Amino acid sequence: MGKKNLETCFSPALYEADLHKGSIVVIIDILRATSAICTAFANGASSIIPVGEVEEARDYKKRGYLVAAERDGYVLDFADFGNSPFNFTREKVEGKTLVYSTTNGTGIINLASSAEKIVIGSFLNISALSRWLISQNKDVVLFCAGWKNRFNLEDTICAGAFAERLLQSGLYSTICDSTLAALDLWSVAQKDLTGYIEKVAQRTRLRSKGLDDCIGFCLTPDFTEKIPVIKNGILVDNIS
Amino acid sequence: MGKKNLETCFSPALYEADLHKGSIVVIIDILRATSAICTAFANGASSIIPVGEVEEARDYKKRGYLVAAERDGYVLDFADFGNSPFNFTREKVEGKTLVYSTTNGTGIINLASSAEKIVIGSFLNISALSRWLISQNKDVVLFCAGWKNRFNLEDTICAGAFAERLLQSGLYSTICDSTLAALDLWSVAQKDLTGYIEKVAQRTRLRSKGLDDCIGFCLTPDFTEKIPVIKNGILVDNIS
Repeated sequence: MGKKNLETCFSPALYEADLHKGSIVVIIDILRATSAICTAFANGASSIIPVGEVEEARDYKKRGYLVAAERDGYVLDFADFGNSPFNFTREKVEGKTLVYSTTNGTGIINLASSAEKIVIGSFLNISALSRWLISQNKDVVLFCAGWKNRFNLEDTICAGAFAERLLQSGLYSTICDSTLAALDLWSVAQKDLTGYIEKVAQRTRLRSKGLDDCIGFCLTPDFTEKIPVIKNGILVDNIS
Repeated sequence: MGKKNLETCFSPALYEADLHKGSIVVIIDILRATSAICTAFANGASSIIPVGEVEEARDYKKRGYLVAAERDGYVLDFADFGNSPFNFTREKVEGKTLVYSTTNGTGIINLASSAEKIVIGSFLNISALSRWLISQNKDVVLFCAGWKNRFNLEDTICAGAFAERLLQSGLYSTICDSTLAALDLWSVAQKDLTGYIEKVAQRTRLRSKGLDDCIGFCLTPDFTEKIPVIKNGILVDNIS
């Protein structure tokens, strides 16, 4: 049996949906969407509805849902809280269906909708998700969310960390330059991950808005065993 | 006076023309287009007409031009030779206007047409072009051609080598994650550039067609002082 193919995509603008119909797509947006989603499930959320438009989030709020919603780093007036992982405490989310407002994320979920499966990756669930991927015997695409369609370093580094684990299993091969680059960048970054993230553009953007308190947490490996997966457009806990 | 901004673009699909109207754009496509263009000028070509369509190249041939034209690595039947830098010898090109067929390249030139200036970069002219850029006091975009809109490593590494030289001048700053990644990848690759390029997808593609003999040459720094520049859609020698 041949090895499964591992690819990495650095931006929604580079995603080739037709090539990945049989693949498992891992969405990586570590500062902060996919870290927040992993945290919510770790703290007992039952499901998360990702919504793209502010008005859609507002409608969910009117119908009684707990809503996390920001635009440009500011919590929207009708929302219960913002998009930081620190907001998704057990007290707030356990047993609940949440609404998470994310323009970038919903676009990516739509782009990848023809894939075999879409799962949510971050450092917080890296070992559990890597083990699960290895057990699936499918091609894998590490899909970095980027920022406004641009390449970003923090998601690339996390993709490199996933790629290292998958390739070490001996079950995957890659001829994808993006994967090779992610591996090399991870090898540079992992020597001092916190220091490395200091130079990243997204950190600068978050810091300017006082939203950078969660970055150390977002770099923590294996905070949870949860593997969020998209089913019918909704995020659910794959393990339970 | 503030520092000038340095950015890197990894693919035509990621180029943001509106942001770069006042910038000098350096097109980097080292295996093999921009290396071949630098070689042609080093060997005395007077100008190069980049054409996108095969039929356009054929028309130029009928009108008596010397035409370099390949598709998928095969020399087209009407062409004088293919796209390898080794074809652009002094005997063939000195004093002549050439036609160079490149689908990818003409698309990029069109994309960047609103920029202040478009120049051609490769390892072959890296020192001369870096010095010239530093003398211009303009924002710079390192525009990697990629391959079929995908990220590629060889152009990224070359962009990292340019970025290192520009930043060392102290005249530029960057908050662009792509530039930071290119710098880190260059720092990994430069220890053994030939060995590093061994793993690159484009090398595999060229090797499968027997077109990889020029790769060592394409990695040679400072073969020429020439700085090809686009003027009215035509490549000319900026220095002369």
